[in-house]
Amino acid sequence: MEKQYLNSPSGFPDMPPEDALLQNKVLEIIKRNYELYGFSPIETPIVERTQILTAKSEGEINSQIYGLRLLNPAEDSQDDTKDLALRFDHTVPLARFVATNFSALAFPFKRYAIGPVFRGERAQKGRERQFIQADIDIIGNEKLDIKNDAEVLAVINSIFTELGFKSFTIRVGNRKILTGLLNATGLSDSDSVSRSLGIIDRLDKIEADEVLRLLSEFISKEDARSLIDILTVAEENTALIEKLESLELGELFAEGVEELKNVINTSYALGVPEENIQVDISIARGLDYYTGTVYETRIDSDTKLGSVASGGRYADLASAFINKKLPGVGISIGVSRLLEYIKNDKSFLAKISKANKVLIAIPEDKTEEMSTYFEMAQQLRNANIPTEVYLEARPLPKQLQFADKNGFVAVVIAGKDELISNTVAIKNMKTGEQNTVPVSELVSSVESMLK
Amino acid sequence: MEKQYLNSPSGFPDMPPEDALLQNKVLEIIKRNYELYGFSPIETPIVERTQILTAKSEGEINSQIYGLRLLNPAEDSQDDTKDLALRFDHTVPLARFVATNFSALAFPFKRYAIGPVFRGERAQKGRERQFIQADIDIIGNEKLDIKNDAEVLAVINSIFTELGFKSFTIRVGNRKILTGLLNATGLSDSDSVSRSLGIIDRLDKIEADEVLRLLSEFISKEDARSLIDILTVAEENTALIEKLESLELGELFAEGVEELKNVINTSYALGVPEENIQVDISIARGLDYYTGTVYETRIDSDTKLGSVASGGRYADLASAFINKKLPGVGISIGVSRLLEYIKNDKSFLAKISKANKVLIAIPEDKTEEMSTYFEMAQQLRNANIPTEVYLEARPLPKQLQFADKNGFVAVVIAGKDELISNTVAIKNMKTGEQNTVPVSELVSSVESMLK
Repeated sequence: MEKQYLNSPSGFPDMPPEDALLQNKVLEIIKRNYELYGFSPIETPIVERTQILTAKSEGEINSQIYGLRLLNPAEDSQDDTKDLALRFDHTVPLARFVATNFSALAFPFKRYAIGPVFRGERAQKGRERQFIQADIDIIGNEKLDIKNDAEVLAVINSIFTELGFKSFTIRVGNRKILTGLLNATGLSDSDSVSRSLGIIDRLDKIEADEVLRLLSEFISKEDARSLIDILTVAEENTALIEKLESLELGELFAEGVEELKNVINTSYALGVPEENIQVDISIARGLDYYTGTVYETRIDSDTKLGSVASGGRYADLASAFINKKLPGVGISIGVSRLLEYIKNDKSFLAKISKANKVLIAIPEDKTEEMSTYFEMAQQLRNANIPTEVYLEARPLPKQLQFADKNGFVAVVIAGKDELISNTVAIKNMKTGEQNTVPVSELVSSVESMLK
Repeated sequence: MEKQYLNSPSGFPDMPPEDALLQNKVLEIIKRNYELYGFSPIETPIVERTQILTAKSEGEINSQIYGLRLLNPAEDSQDDTKDLALRFDHTVPLARFVATNFSALAFPFKRYAIGPVFRGERAQKGRERQFIQADIDIIGNEKLDIKNDAEVLAVINSIFTELGFKSFTIRVGNRKILTGLLNATGLSDSDSVSRSLGIIDRLDKIEADEVLRLLSEFISKEDARSLIDILTVAEENTALIEKLESLELGELFAEGVEELKNVINTSYALGVPEENIQVDISIARGLDYYTGTVYETRIDSDTKLGSVASGGRYADLASAFINKKLPGVGISIGVSRLLEYIKNDKSFLAKISKANKVLIAIPEDKTEEMSTYFEMAQQLRNANIPTEVYLEARPLPKQLQFADKNGFVAVVIAGKDELISNTVAIKNMKTGEQNTVPVSELVSSVESMLK
């Protein structure tokens, strides 16, 4: 087959062992924190019914949904693929799951979901067609306390802190404040409000003058100017909230400010350091779905990366599927995007310490008497040290070369002399040093080398 | 939406929290053992090129491959979905990966892959359309020592032992023995041999008389009878191998017996107990792909379940993709099928101890002064105890009811009196007992309750 076809398809990248190990490590940290805060996993399938996925999907997502088809259906096959498609997020499947299992669930229902989602768009750097999202959501029955919005933020703070990022910022806004501001200019029909929010959301990507120009389609230039002034006030969080509290811009606006204040103060009470949170009322998020708190998270040293954890509060999770009011709040970590950043961060990589495998080399004349070597391997494995026995009959230098290319941290060598004296030689592959120790000290010697 | 559409599609099941936790636990054990034996993860995408998946696929698999299509392609979209399809196993992607990355890999290359695969067949119990396979493979360059076939077996033995199955059997055969037996009857054209192997493979599912009848299309009734006699000899492993060694049935047969003997003896040397291995030379496995050792694994108490870990040796992994001879050996654990069994095994479930979450209840008059409660939660989380703070303003009995329905193991209650005396009440949700302890003993008290 021609070489070009052997690469995985565009937007569906392969992960070699070093990247897959890194991803496993990151997912472990995410999962552990989700569980520590009381979230439970659910697994919904990668394939959903078409009508579920399209029931409420907005905008461009609709043109990106992958449906299924059978490549070569057998004559007698019941081909139901016209109803099947790949999920594009974890929220729609959550809504269906909650609707189906409503009576079995205790609310507030706190679940996490980690896994690949699919979008049929043109692939580009940081935007693959298959990527992993790690979501948490808290779903209430009829109502859900605003403090939950702070808890979700605290979980993200815990994870990014444990991942070891020196500096990151969770930006927090509230859609009620933005909508209240627009209402105060006299704009109230929902389509115009929605389109204006879309323009405001781009404030950090395009020039303020351009935003001004675009907004003036909906509101007066003067209103647009004072709107942008409010949105871009540079104050620290508490002062900014005080300033917002002093403005009299209607009920919705005041409600949003009150919620935002509660979220920020509760986050502090939950131990989130002030420097990791930034009030930013210009955040709107793309989707109309969000109705209150909205979040975006940035790695400060790489703002071009975009948000690596985003979400917010929504008034109603599953209205398309069940006649119950289910408010919720959630956030989604873009794991694949986060990994793109981490792969370039040497300080993070050092902490992962991928190279902890030990190789037991086998002298060429010993391949028929393996029990001793297998026992050594088992001792190391019992001490949780990944260990491989070299099973091919090859010269020792070739085995050391293999260990080097594969990133083994140590090679254990026991030839005729060592076996007679009941010792082993341990070669440190980083320093090149080699020490001979009694077999009984094999495990402790390797352990101290790994430290 | 009508209720019937809210269930996930046929063959694509949902997993509620208790099942998802169980699956996580099982996957952790599998992953840990794979890594302890020196296997590294790779991640290939769920979507592959159609021509990769169909390059070498055999038989009915071809009619079960799901291709992709865009549901509502945008006018300007570059629709390349005709070339995209869902993987049906981890082996074809491995072959492509090794071919693409050949020069960067050190051989023998030991990788594991865990994730969902997809087959468009009619769903039935134990046969879903999306299911998880957990594979290991060892790939050699030009050659691969037969001892690797024993190592793969030892890994499976470790995993099933750690999973706590009282009794399971890894059955081991060798395709060279079977083919040698057929050759000895005079049958040699590869199509007839292949079809005869298919018949023999069903020896444990259909009557011996029926096998006899079917085989007589290819060999004489007399030959078929003595063939079946050999295949069904009931002897323990060593005696059976000795008996096979005494037969003179040509070179291929002798080679197979020699390999089988080596695999069994090396497995013993690797510490696999004799009672967990059973030589069974009637195993052929469906696919022509296998050329030597073949395995199947059964839970002894549920043989109807079928094999939960199967695989074998193949002469050439990637001949469709690269002009290199890459022999390999591998095994695949059918995780979804295994879970079906585990879910019904109470002794296993007890060990998983899903219920280790703690709830911190909040008195209704305290919802505005949360810091103390948040601090308690953080102390518990720092001790690795999943902890949830009840954030809704509701009466205490409702909070206890929530804890009960959600399987919390303990509820921490601190009302006015407790806060003044710096104590907390801890309610054991299993026994109903409630103890009051100083706040400083909160973590140690909960820890001892969890033991």
